[in-house]
Amino acid sequence: MASSTVSFIIIIIITTVLLPSLSSQLSDLFPSNNPPPFLGKHSHPIKQPNHHQQYRYETRYFSQPLDHFSFLDLPRFRQRYLINTEHWVGPSRSGPIFLYCGNEGDIEWFAVNTGFVWDIAPRFGAMILFPEHRYYGDSMPFGSKEEAYRNATTLSYLTAEQVLADFAVLITDLKKNLSAEGCPVVLFGGSYGGMLAAWMRLKYPHVAVGALASSAPILQFEDIVPPETFYNIVSNSFKRESSSCFDTIKNSWNALRSEGQKEDGLKQLSKTFHLCRELTSVQGLSDWLDSAYSYLAMVNYPYPSNFLMPLPGHPIREVCKRIDGSPAGSSILERIFNGVSVYYNYTGEVDCFQLDDDPHGMDGWNWQACTEMVMPMSSDQNTSMFPAYDWDYSAFREGCQRDFQVTPRPRWITTEFGGHDIEHVLKSFGSNIIFSNGLLDPWSGGSVLKNISETIIALITKEGAHHIDLRASSTEDPDWLVEQRATEIKLIQGWIYNYSKKMKATFEI
Amino acid sequence: MASSTVSFIIIIIITTVLLPSLSSQLSDLFPSNNPPPFLGKHSHPIKQPNHHQQYRYETRYFSQPLDHFSFLDLPRFRQRYLINTEHWVGPSRSGPIFLYCGNEGDIEWFAVNTGFVWDIAPRFGAMILFPEHRYYGDSMPFGSKEEAYRNATTLSYLTAEQVLADFAVLITDLKKNLSAEGCPVVLFGGSYGGMLAAWMRLKYPHVAVGALASSAPILQFEDIVPPETFYNIVSNSFKRESSSCFDTIKNSWNALRSEGQKEDGLKQLSKTFHLCRELTSVQGLSDWLDSAYSYLAMVNYPYPSNFLMPLPGHPIREVCKRIDGSPAGSSILERIFNGVSVYYNYTGEVDCFQLDDDPHGMDGWNWQACTEMVMPMSSDQNTSMFPAYDWDYSAFREGCQRDFQVTPRPRWITTEFGGHDIEHVLKSFGSNIIFSNGLLDPWSGGSVLKNISETIIALITKEGAHHIDLRASSTEDPDWLVEQRATEIKLIQGWIYNYSKKMKATFEI
Repeated sequence: MASSTVSFIIIIIITTVLLPSLSSQLSDLFPSNNPPPFLGKHSHPIKQPNHHQQYRYETRYFSQPLDHFSFLDLPRFRQRYLINTEHWVGPSRSGPIFLYCGNEGDIEWFAVNTGFVWDIAPRFGAMILFPEHRYYGDSMPFGSKEEAYRNATTLSYLTAEQVLADFAVLITDLKKNLSAEGCPVVLFGGSYGGMLAAWMRLKYPHVAVGALASSAPILQFEDIVPPETFYNIVSNSFKRESSSCFDTIKNSWNALRSEGQKEDGLKQLSKTFHLCRELTSVQGLSDWLDSAYSYLAMVNYPYPSNFLMPLPGHPIREVCKRIDGSPAGSSILERIFNGVSVYYNYTGEVDCFQLDDDPHGMDGWNWQACTEMVMPMSSDQNTSMFPAYDWDYSAFREGCQRDFQVTPRPRWITTEFGGHDIEHVLKSFGSNIIFSNGLLDPWSGGSVLKNISETIIALITKEGAHHIDLRASSTEDPDWLVEQRATEIKLIQGWIYNYSKKMKATFEI
Repeated sequence: MASSTVSFIIIIIITTVLLPSLSSQLSDLFPSNNPPPFLGKHSHPIKQPNHHQQYRYETRYFSQPLDHFSFLDLPRFRQRYLINTEHWVGPSRSGPIFLYCGNEGDIEWFAVNTGFVWDIAPRFGAMILFPEHRYYGDSMPFGSKEEAYRNATTLSYLTAEQVLADFAVLITDLKKNLSAEGCPVVLFGGSYGGMLAAWMRLKYPHVAVGALASSAPILQFEDIVPPETFYNIVSNSFKRESSSCFDTIKNSWNALRSEGQKEDGLKQLSKTFHLCRELTSVQGLSDWLDSAYSYLAMVNYPYPSNFLMPLPGHPIREVCKRIDGSPAGSSILERIFNGVSVYYNYTGEVDCFQLDDDPHGMDGWNWQACTEMVMPMSSDQNTSMFPAYDWDYSAFREGCQRDFQVTPRPRWITTEFGGHDIEHVLKSFGSNIIFSNGLLDPWSGGSVLKNISETIIALITKEGAHHIDLRASSTEDPDWLVEQRATEIKLIQGWIYNYSKKMKATFEI
């Protein structure tokens, strides 16, 4: 009787204390409250001299209303835009205008990393425009980043709808000033910029004749795609290179946790990972690793690149080579360190690593993720190499309230832009959008992967990564990429041709 | 020499003083700074008992964000909506939802004056929804009309974009709560409500499958249609009944002005027009007459109606009969008074007339006209029966700054919703919109009067007036009206049929 009572109590302890604690331990490394890994954190102003001397542009500023949708008496702000007209054939020949929808970063960074637009503009006789996204780069409301990012009130106009209106007002004014009302505008955008390009074509069909939306996860909201999608694709990109590499990473989280719980464990971890400052918790290191894997999957290009970091071609293959090929007897964590060094230190110039100290800081993309851009993310314990985690909206919301004093509107984006039944909705509505995606890119799972109509086209490349098609052409381009770009050019030519035909018909009437 | 100098001086006086003064006198009666004559001022809460007992609805309230496009921490407001589900066949049978886009007034007034929706809902098995427009009726931000209309800051969220977002958020939430996500929404709207319906279909195709936009002047902006259009149509509606009636009205403005300049002239005018209070200027009387003519042209229905005022069928015919048939020897102004009495006093119950004392008062539509809804209006001295007037944007803007401390954005509506080259833009974009117009309606000139595509259809009736098709069917309906409504029903059935077909196809895949 006494013994039975004891075991009953033990069972209660196990189920009510240990199990929840274990389960919370299993997921505690997952950065549930981090924003989705978009490009913003990499897109700082270009500090090095611009090596892309072929990309010549003039920098101009345009005065924008801070709130297009109310008549509050607010200070206007200066939106920066880059412009190149040297190939433009002008209004008399209806020269097209190529407009890249600036996304979450300094527009100069996007300009030099979107070689496709520069490459093709001459053959189209096109003007090139790179308007900057409000609250990024040099386009700060209230006069400075410090003022713009002061609090939730000053940040409150950092929304996708406002930036689309910025683009519409800017291009309408510019065309009027140049008497270029008859010149077709073609939109380009990658990643979040691709989402803006697609949404802009849907919401402002009178402003632009078509959009190339590259790697644009417009369906990564609510329950439209399973929340595991992103991390499953990252994981598969490692698994396809090496299943032992996948296993090592999958097992590393427990190793990390065990090590962190030891006396002097954090000190030892800091040493193993060559950190400049000693860790105060395992979380920072875990986020640092998670970021590396996610970004590696995004920029898993077939040739060396310098987009986010200097990297070799097929960088995940390289990471896995290092993980799998570490000297016999290496620990899991030593293997992991060798692997991620490909991402963080490919040039070998780094002596010690600085972790991102303040992931919840006043960063523009963090704000956007905490307001409109709520993208549910889970990690499936069977298919993902990341710690298992179920999307927890309440925890996410609380994080946003704590960090920004703002409550997200998780259903707003699909209400405003659609997303549910998108095939169905766009079949008889909308036209001239290319959704291009590389299936290695973890964001591809949240994008449009099949043709919706004759003019809303999905271009998929099995070996492509994050908007590789928007990058400058190079002699190392594989055939599939050359073909993909040729198809895009042909489709864009079709948009412009049909536009001119209709315009001519209109004038002839 | 002396004589020649004198005549030179006289010429200077004539050209620099008299001519401008004369020209300004010629136009000084024109209500250039008045808002366009929409329906708002008539749509006060229903004071009489509701005689339309067949229109049964439940009144509900929905909590809306005040600003959908920023994350300012603002108080939410209660949006009123009327709902009837008695004929709705429910989600299992994909019962349609008929949503009338509430416009600038009390929603109950629009509900009882939009019999078409009530008439056809049963045969469609449709739910009926009448959401109210923010800042009108019982849908006041900040808790009361007094607070909402306090100043430009509190009024600043009274915009078309915000109200479209209100509709989208409301219907999305309602459908979710009813598990009715698969039920097609059909939009209806008349006048400004018709503009909202068309714009909603264009901007939110994922929310609604089609829109019946009746008498919706979406092209009455900037220079898309000539600014004389509106007053030319009003004038023609009088001329077609009687050219002498047209001439009498055209000559009356000078008579009015001359009379007003006499000693005791204002007193005499007040007497001639049976005003309750003596005039302080001719302007108030001129506005009162202008309103009557414009509204008469809008509600020039072929049968007696009680929409704006109790009126006979063909009311302009009746007005002209009274003007032309006044006793021999009647003065111009006496004839005019006899004529407009048809509009202001058809029932003969009015002893004296109250003019609108404060046309620039804090009225919702005045605010909208002074911010986004800038509709240029001129009066052509040859073709219009109104005083000649050239649209003067500067004067208009100054009026808005004086009355509301707000500066209009006259190009915003076309930037946000399009309008220029609309045929061209919508040919390959957009679908399922009916633009219905009666050519007697002065707003028809600013609407879409020809088919844009197979699914964007213009329905025109030569004898129709302001959204007559939305009114309840009656035994007095002329054949053309019966036919027009039958066509509308057929088109709406087509939208729903195609929607169901696509949904079925989606499920079968």
